[in-house]
Amino acid sequence: MFRFHSLLLFRRLRRHRRQFSSATSHPLELPLSHPIYIIWGSNTGIGKTLVSTGIAASSLLSSPSYFHYLKPLQTGFPSDSDSRFLLTKLRHLFLRSTGPRPSLSASHVLLNASSAVTGNRGNDARFPEEENVVGGEGIGSSRLFCKTLYAWEEAVSPHLAAERESGAVEDSVVLETLQRCFREVVESGVGKEKSEVMCVVETAGGVASPGASGSLQCDLYRPFRIPAILVGDGRLGGISGTISAYESLTLRGYDVVAVVFEDHGLLNEGPIMSYMRNKLPVLVLPPVPKDPSNDLMEWFEGSHNLFSNLREIMVSAYLERVKKFHDMPRKARDIIWWPFTQHKLVPEGAVTVIDSRCGENFAVFKAQSTEVVAPLFDACASWWTQGPNAILQAELAREMGYAAARFGHVMFPENVHEPALNCAELLLDGVGKGWASRAYFSDNGSTAIEIALKMAFRKFSVDHGLVRNCLEDTTNERSTELMVLALQRSYHGDTLGAMEAQAPSSYTGFLQQPWYTGRGLFVDPPSVFMSNNTWSLSLPEGFQIENLKLGNITFASRDEIFLKGRDTSELAAVYSSYISKLLSGYRGSNNIGALIMEPVIQGAGGMHMVDPLFQRVLVNECRSRNIPVIFDEIFTGFWRLGVETAVDLIHCVPDIACFGKLMTGGIIPLAATLATNAVFDSFIGESKLKALLHGHSYSAHALGCMAAVKSIQWFKDPCSNPNATSGGRLLKELWDDKMVHKISSHPAVERVVALGTLCALELKAEGRNAGYASLYARSLLQNLREDGIYMRPLGNVIYLLCGPCTSTDICNQILVKLYKRLEEFSGSNN
Amino acid sequence: MFRFHSLLLFRRLRRHRRQFSSATSHPLELPLSHPIYIIWGSNTGIGKTLVSTGIAASSLLSSPSYFHYLKPLQTGFPSDSDSRFLLTKLRHLFLRSTGPRPSLSASHVLLNASSAVTGNRGNDARFPEEENVVGGEGIGSSRLFCKTLYAWEEAVSPHLAAERESGAVEDSVVLETLQRCFREVVESGVGKEKSEVMCVVETAGGVASPGASGSLQCDLYRPFRIPAILVGDGRLGGISGTISAYESLTLRGYDVVAVVFEDHGLLNEGPIMSYMRNKLPVLVLPPVPKDPSNDLMEWFEGSHNLFSNLREIMVSAYLERVKKFHDMPRKARDIIWWPFTQHKLVPEGAVTVIDSRCGENFAVFKAQSTEVVAPLFDACASWWTQGPNAILQAELAREMGYAAARFGHVMFPENVHEPALNCAELLLDGVGKGWASRAYFSDNGSTAIEIALKMAFRKFSVDHGLVRNCLEDTTNERSTELMVLALQRSYHGDTLGAMEAQAPSSYTGFLQQPWYTGRGLFVDPPSVFMSNNTWSLSLPEGFQIENLKLGNITFASRDEIFLKGRDTSELAAVYSSYISKLLSGYRGSNNIGALIMEPVIQGAGGMHMVDPLFQRVLVNECRSRNIPVIFDEIFTGFWRLGVETAVDLIHCVPDIACFGKLMTGGIIPLAATLATNAVFDSFIGESKLKALLHGHSYSAHALGCMAAVKSIQWFKDPCSNPNATSGGRLLKELWDDKMVHKISSHPAVERVVALGTLCALELKAEGRNAGYASLYARSLLQNLREDGIYMRPLGNVIYLLCGPCTSTDICNQILVKLYKRLEEFSGSNN
Repeated sequence: MFRFHSLLLFRRLRRHRRQFSSATSHPLELPLSHPIYIIWGSNTGIGKTLVSTGIAASSLLSSPSYFHYLKPLQTGFPSDSDSRFLLTKLRHLFLRSTGPRPSLSASHVLLNASSAVTGNRGNDARFPEEENVVGGEGIGSSRLFCKTLYAWEEAVSPHLAAERESGAVEDSVVLETLQRCFREVVESGVGKEKSEVMCVVETAGGVASPGASGSLQCDLYRPFRIPAILVGDGRLGGISGTISAYESLTLRGYDVVAVVFEDHGLLNEGPIMSYMRNKLPVLVLPPVPKDPSNDLMEWFEGSHNLFSNLREIMVSAYLERVKKFHDMPRKARDIIWWPFTQHKLVPEGAVTVIDSRCGENFAVFKAQSTEVVAPLFDACASWWTQGPNAILQAELAREMGYAAARFGHVMFPENVHEPALNCAELLLDGVGKGWASRAYFSDNGSTAIEIALKMAFRKFSVDHGLVRNCLEDTTNERSTELMVLALQRSYHGDTLGAMEAQAPSSYTGFLQQPWYTGRGLFVDPPSVFMSNNTWSLSLPEGFQIENLKLGNITFASRDEIFLKGRDTSELAAVYSSYISKLLSGYRGSNNIGALIMEPVIQGAGGMHMVDPLFQRVLVNECRSRNIPVIFDEIFTGFWRLGVETAVDLIHCVPDIACFGKLMTGGIIPLAATLATNAVFDSFIGESKLKALLHGHSYSAHALGCMAAVKSIQWFKDPCSNPNATSGGRLLKELWDDKMVHKISSHPAVERVVALGTLCALELKAEGRNAGYASLYARSLLQNLREDGIYMRPLGNVIYLLCGPCTSTDICNQILVKLYKRLEEFSGSNN
Repeated sequence: MFRFHSLLLFRRLRRHRRQFSSATSHPLELPLSHPIYIIWGSNTGIGKTLVSTGIAASSLLSSPSYFHYLKPLQTGFPSDSDSRFLLTKLRHLFLRSTGPRPSLSASHVLLNASSAVTGNRGNDARFPEEENVVGGEGIGSSRLFCKTLYAWEEAVSPHLAAERESGAVEDSVVLETLQRCFREVVESGVGKEKSEVMCVVETAGGVASPGASGSLQCDLYRPFRIPAILVGDGRLGGISGTISAYESLTLRGYDVVAVVFEDHGLLNEGPIMSYMRNKLPVLVLPPVPKDPSNDLMEWFEGSHNLFSNLREIMVSAYLERVKKFHDMPRKARDIIWWPFTQHKLVPEGAVTVIDSRCGENFAVFKAQSTEVVAPLFDACASWWTQGPNAILQAELAREMGYAAARFGHVMFPENVHEPALNCAELLLDGVGKGWASRAYFSDNGSTAIEIALKMAFRKFSVDHGLVRNCLEDTTNERSTELMVLALQRSYHGDTLGAMEAQAPSSYTGFLQQPWYTGRGLFVDPPSVFMSNNTWSLSLPEGFQIENLKLGNITFASRDEIFLKGRDTSELAAVYSSYISKLLSGYRGSNNIGALIMEPVIQGAGGMHMVDPLFQRVLVNECRSRNIPVIFDEIFTGFWRLGVETAVDLIHCVPDIACFGKLMTGGIIPLAATLATNAVFDSFIGESKLKALLHGHSYSAHALGCMAAVKSIQWFKDPCSNPNATSGGRLLKELWDDKMVHKISSHPAVERVVALGTLCALELKAEGRNAGYASLYARSLLQNLREDGIYMRPLGNVIYLLCGPCTSTDICNQILVKLYKRLEEFSGSNN
């Protein structure tokens, strides 16, 4: 529809093509010093450039200001150039302008181009390197900067042009180039008011048209999440196209601040405004003259008020966004009550404003000299739940939309729906494979644990003859005081039932849990860790006497720790006799109705790795006594430890296991308790009162089940997860072995545990510096925040958690940064 | 692009226009006897009719079969008629067919038309009422049925044509007409194989083009959720248009089984298949000749294999869907463990397969003589969580997609993000207005209650000097055994802490809760209900003596029960002295650290309405003793009782209140505990150990908070919720007063409570027929299932729950059906 010309500065060519890779070498920041917008079209040829031009004109003509126009991807070049079109029209509009007007100086530039275009360069006089245009005179000076970032000759979609002209450009390169341009926007605006400088980025084709790498542009630009203007379609069929394009943008988390389209006499604005529920301005441009010889000057002048209006909308939405960022920390401190947080220790400046997340990164507001929205690697994996990279997050977003539209929520008892059934099948065939027969859904880890305890106690009661006559007993009388066998430093959730199954700790004092009594025998387990380059075993005090003959036990490698062959070792016999002695010496051992433990890694207790041999012996000892075994896999499940289930590490199975957190890919709460048929059978009878009378309204809610199905399949499939090996039961090693060793030898470090997506380290600390309430790690973590890494400590234990799909490159970068900050920390603490 | 002709049978005209109303007078069933598909276009003029024709040809030409073509909305009529086009092409194709071929008899029909079109009718010879075409000879007989349902003259979008030609048609009318056509499909197929009959419904324009009422077609047809074929766009910009259209369909819960589009030499299939991750077949049609004189016969013949392929995909997806429906009950019974369900009492036939939900209705598979997917009114409001009508559900689906794309999940402590902050503000300004200052988020009602108990006990401990020296105490020693004051028949959730705060019941026996002790003083409260047309007060036994002088207390109306003026009544004094006496007579009254109660309605305990005066007096008595007050509003909150919060009914405020269920519109789990600043302050100190150390990984997850914000605003706003009155603090009366009175006088009914969205009734029952485990109501509920109403009993108590936006028409219909079935039930039980 429009035919333009443009200019050329220099070339940089990348041939390597990687689908939808937006991992850049530097973090991508969106500056907030001035309004930056992205212009999307609901189709190609819909007038995006007219809109860009109109906005530019309204900026530059009304008062002295700077305007940056960026066209990242241009095809049909050089005969087509949106940048050139805009410049030409602006120049003409300036020349026609009659009132007092600022002077205009304008430059346009082609940053990088594909080989085809750059091949032409030397021969084509149409591409002077830079052109300055000065027009008008008067009250001040305005400046227009136009840039085309990448261009191809053929007038087709960028991915096709790039392919045919061997001129592909990686997503990360486009994003980095764009970021450099944003920096120039900032530099140009030094000393200017916020609204005196504006930048628009004009996309190519429709919202979901592929970019040069083949990634859809709405995915490609997502890491910046630039506020958007959608140019809609006023033609027949345009209502549908506009609404669908809008939905594709919102499905990627974009905020659209206005919709604008050309009038074709069909009143498309009616249904579009009705769809938007009047929450978004919809602007209708006068019909564009179809005669190609028309220079559109009258059209632009006739549209001036509308574009001024649009520009005002853009400026005020921008100002409102910045204001919100400033206000949010105070508001949050005023009305929110954070969990696990002493509010007195959180000054306003310490509140992190999270604008969004993209894959493993938060995008946070930073109020530095230039305010920006900048990425932070979420090394808490949003408190242990998180798994998706940017691609999976986008897929999950579509799944969530679909699930909510198809199912909303439907109640579960005696019903079945596809997401719940698929999820149950996937769990039993994955984390429950080989032992579990039933899936019981609940909302979070705590509830999954409470359900598991009820299951185990029932099974125990049936097996040990405690159910006689108590079926109809609803009184308070308890014939038997059932107990759990559990480990010191365990943590199974925050609700009272889950709490009762853990040893006394900082979390269980009277002030925290007035009803806590700790109904269990809590065993201090042997732990393993890396220290000074070596994996060692640490035996608790109870072992000391027998330990004399064992000496100092170390392992040649981490793999050795997990060998099933250790069952025949001397240590196994020591463990077995230790446990037997413990149980026989315990007064209430006949009332121990369940063994409950986190296999391999104790999370909240301080990221301790328990000797898997000890846990296996414990399971065997309980099984021989007919005590049901519960694995709390809420933290450890779903590749958190590099395996689908920790069963693959400790080589023994439970009767009941609990899952949550990463199960849904870390997107919404859902938990499951899996059980054997034998456990299930202990609830079967003639009366409803024998059934498991525990359930939550949202049991097996469709959104959660669908997220779980998608995520589990995604993590398991080597086609989607590059880290998946061994048919999806294993992840490849994510943390660089050399770096882990190096860290383990650092003088500030007591111990390291690197396994799967977890890399934890305990800082050497004593007295008040040690333990859960310690603030010892604070300065270290603050420095890492500067490096773009967001961590949250467990006292003097700090950890990095990535997702099952996180690239080893990213993990390495983080370890290197951590080591560097450890050096400083060490210095400051000596 | 195509110009067609069509025919006319009869007219029915509706002038009344209602935006997006799909409430039909009869439930809309999608038959499963044969494949029915809907054909969507990613834009207008994209070749939908060519695809319909190609599918029809491949059906009819390959073997004897019946094919139904339905065009619900046709504009540009009569010069344009897709139906006529299809018929004409089919006839020509049959005549050209050379091999052995079945005979074809075809009819086409225009069912209803707007005034403009029908006005023309008499004058226009192009509209014979029915035309039969028989062509070919040979091996069997095929039959083609073509129907145009509604037509308008102007070649614009149906909403515009309907408006200009005064020929609007309500959505419900279109849907009912479509359903009649589906029945004809079923009738035509009696005695035939499943795949011998096929039906396609061809939409008009793009997926989100408005229908005649202005509703977008993708919303209009949603109640049927017909499996879909998407006709994509092979042109420049077509990748984007196709993907966006696909996303609009999935955002409404449609299943697309194939994408098909015309080749324009741009290889659009590459990026589209890559986007689909090869999970959906993408078929590319040969270029369509552009010469208008071309009769397309060669094109159709050249595309025959492709259309056969498409038809096979459609048939096999259909067969797979039906097979899944049949398999799901067995699979569910094999691997799922339902909450609150005695599996032995659930035969395979009793498992409900829920295909989807649309607003207040489930869509369930019914294996009757003709298998169908039929709606069931979800009268459990999916276990008390549900609120949205179809429009809000669609809005929430978009919000969920956006929230997942923008935020996924981000951890909460010391952070803030917009959805959490907005949600907290809305809660404090709504359900917490006037008293609450802090919002604490968790995952479900149980956890919200456990948090509330911890808050209350801390506040009590601080106020009563119990915190000295116990800050660092992590031992098991408890200086004080804190108790709650609670009501008999209360229910506060399934986790142990929540259970400890409730009186002994069916849920608390040793087999269910081995650790339950019931740490409270549990008061038997006076209740109110309607019986025999009259609201009466029922006093528990403890009152009997003082009650003598009170006589039999009744109320002139329900409103009278809620009058604040009752505070000065004699009864108020009796309540007060009763409570004082109870507390002073209770040994542990000094240890009562919290009052916890469900205001007004006790849900799980049997839908009992407690006298609000009694609850108010109780609150006052506790407040005078400095005992913190917790309201459990998990069931009662958010207009469940016709008011935003039950505080508006009982006219006193708590110190702490818990919310969940309906808070997110019933779409995903989220809970909140609100508290006063005084409660919050009791956790402030220098040490983290004094903070509230309770939290869940998904605290304040973005999807939940965003769903809550959307839903609460929606329910409150009279523009979106037609039931909202008094600025959104009240709902208008939903249950017809006369019908409620009538039911209350029914001999089978013990009592009725109708309030807000709740209408509960207790069936008269004795012995084993009464109580939670009773199966007494089973036959009644089974019959109501036949009437399209899905209920789940609480023993001999049954209830209807609608949403805050449910129309009174629907509520009335349900009450009428209920009464009718009560009559039968009464008969069968006498």
